[in-house]
Amino acid sequence: MKIIIDAMGGDNAPREIVRGALKAQTELGVDIVLTGRAEDLLQALKDDGYTDLPRGLEIAHASQVIAMDADPTASVREQADSSLVVGLGLLARGGGDAFVSAGSTGALLAGSTLLVKRIKGIRRAALSPVLPTKKGGALLIDCGANVECTPEYLLQFAYMGSYYVKKVMGRQTPAVGLLNNGAEEHKGDPLHREAYQLLKTAGEAGRINFVGNLEGRDIAFGAADVVVADGFSGNVLLKTMEGVGLFFVDQMKEMFMQSTGSKLAALLMKKHFKSFKKMLDYTEYGGAPLLGISKPVIKAHGSSNARAICSAVRQARDFAQGGITEDIAQNIEFMKTAGEESPS
Amino acid sequence: MKIIIDAMGGDNAPREIVRGALKAQTELGVDIVLTGRAEDLLQALKDDGYTDLPRGLEIAHASQVIAMDADPTASVREQADSSLVVGLGLLARGGGDAFVSAGSTGALLAGSTLLVKRIKGIRRAALSPVLPTKKGGALLIDCGANVECTPEYLLQFAYMGSYYVKKVMGRQTPAVGLLNNGAEEHKGDPLHREAYQLLKTAGEAGRINFVGNLEGRDIAFGAADVVVADGFSGNVLLKTMEGVGLFFVDQMKEMFMQSTGSKLAALLMKKHFKSFKKMLDYTEYGGAPLLGISKPVIKAHGSSNARAICSAVRQARDFAQGGITEDIAQNIEFMKTAGEESPS
Repeated sequence: MKIIIDAMGGDNAPREIVRGALKAQTELGVDIVLTGRAEDLLQALKDDGYTDLPRGLEIAHASQVIAMDADPTASVREQADSSLVVGLGLLARGGGDAFVSAGSTGALLAGSTLLVKRIKGIRRAALSPVLPTKKGGALLIDCGANVECTPEYLLQFAYMGSYYVKKVMGRQTPAVGLLNNGAEEHKGDPLHREAYQLLKTAGEAGRINFVGNLEGRDIAFGAADVVVADGFSGNVLLKTMEGVGLFFVDQMKEMFMQSTGSKLAALLMKKHFKSFKKMLDYTEYGGAPLLGISKPVIKAHGSSNARAICSAVRQARDFAQGGITEDIAQNIEFMKTAGEESPS
Repeated sequence: MKIIIDAMGGDNAPREIVRGALKAQTELGVDIVLTGRAEDLLQALKDDGYTDLPRGLEIAHASQVIAMDADPTASVREQADSSLVVGLGLLARGGGDAFVSAGSTGALLAGSTLLVKRIKGIRRAALSPVLPTKKGGALLIDCGANVECTPEYLLQFAYMGSYYVKKVMGRQTPAVGLLNNGAEEHKGDPLHREAYQLLKTAGEAGRINFVGNLEGRDIAFGAADVVVADGFSGNVLLKTMEGVGLFFVDQMKEMFMQSTGSKLAALLMKKHFKSFKKMLDYTEYGGAPLLGISKPVIKAHGSSNARAICSAVRQARDFAQGGITEDIAQNIEFMKTAGEESPS
């Protein structure tokens, strides 16, 4: 198993990426290819006491770095020698089993579609982070790659998410729900009403475990393992969860600093808060798989540290080993509708 | 000032509604008309020790009650002698200055539009709850009344929300933001991109204080006073905030019950938690105004107790006194676009 990592992507590149790669190589026993400026990567290794390339680690030199705010499609086309494009090129040619990047989400999406290509029959690739929930997390598909969707896209998201959660998160019959503005079957705009019927039919045929519409309030309590969403409302869901989470943490901090009594309480709660924080910590969940691409691609969080990169590599390994891409390709006939290809 | 209250609407009707009405009458000095079954209301008053109708309180008898799950439009048309329809009829005829109901949201929306009518030129009425934020709350307009919107609807929401927040929440130049899937101007689907331009133009003309796109994560921290949203994603935002809030409270409770030390910490924190809970408590914020209707209508929370009803009456009074309906009518020319009337 060989995982390709964009060593120049993210806020803490290359140092934390290189450290995460070393950690993954040691802990998971996978081979790693780092893409990026060779001199920078060798220096990062040297700073950590490695004068030679450690066993199981390779460097694929790439002289350019795509900026986080660069235009996605243009940068992929114009920066052929960037760490991201070189990495995706390697993946496409079979130079590794999966690709991990903490760089620009837009460039990773555009590059994966252009260079690695979608699975035949899949209309759009979706970005699918794991939301923290009471029941060990739920996959949100899509969280913003596809702002405009058709019912068919949502049907495909349901299948892809279901295969991923089964194989990588180890849940035998993942509960699939549709993010909507109410629980009842008739809720939503035409897109969501049509998608509901497609998911219901797939559920009745026993191909997915469709549990119906989901409301924003159900998700944190673990009402579903897979949350199917159009990219617009999925993005609202994801960022609202993040925002409210940060808000609570902020308020807690303020509250515990208010008096001597509250400071004592904070001391007493230290251990408990630690496990709670762990539940909310994205570094525990790894990155977001890009589902629908013909080979495994993982988007790691932009602020990833070594630990988060190591989690993302584990996830990339499980993604590749699970045969999810094959599952999708083999069942593509069930994911087609008579409808139009693009959103109206 | 006379406020009409649907005494049969909500989970705790009529007892808590009647109590809330009495509380409002005493504390705010407003006159109240209760609509509902006279015998039930008199019994509720008697149970609380009132053998006569207290001064400032009237009863408008209505023999029917619209069920929470009834079809909105059909129930409004068919149940002419329901507490909701009787109340709206009174409001329409000038038998009171504002109407408060904790009953079915759908029926209240349908009934208000059919019986009280929209302000001339307003395309759709919007339901606008106050979201708890670090800066004393933000008005979300719309939260689900209009699942499909046009850019013009969103423009009208921005103006209406701005007038309401200024007059009822007392903020001189309310910051108006557009809920979108990213901060940059080009973000979103065509609906949100077009709405952005309309809001930007209104902002440049000095008619609203447009602060740009909002992401879900900004809202709890108080990035805007008015959050303009299509009803679908507004609903996702509202319910996600509720859900994550409940989830945190649930997790806190679990954490504080885990050990002797944590139980002691809970005792030490009791006072601090109380003020935090107050910030999140919907009974503090009253209900959600229905903006765009030609007279003030407030939707109180379905689970309202006396305190929440009293807050909703205060809000209804401020809504009526503030002249918001007049503000909207006088500025209607700025809220028109050349575009189509209905969502495509």
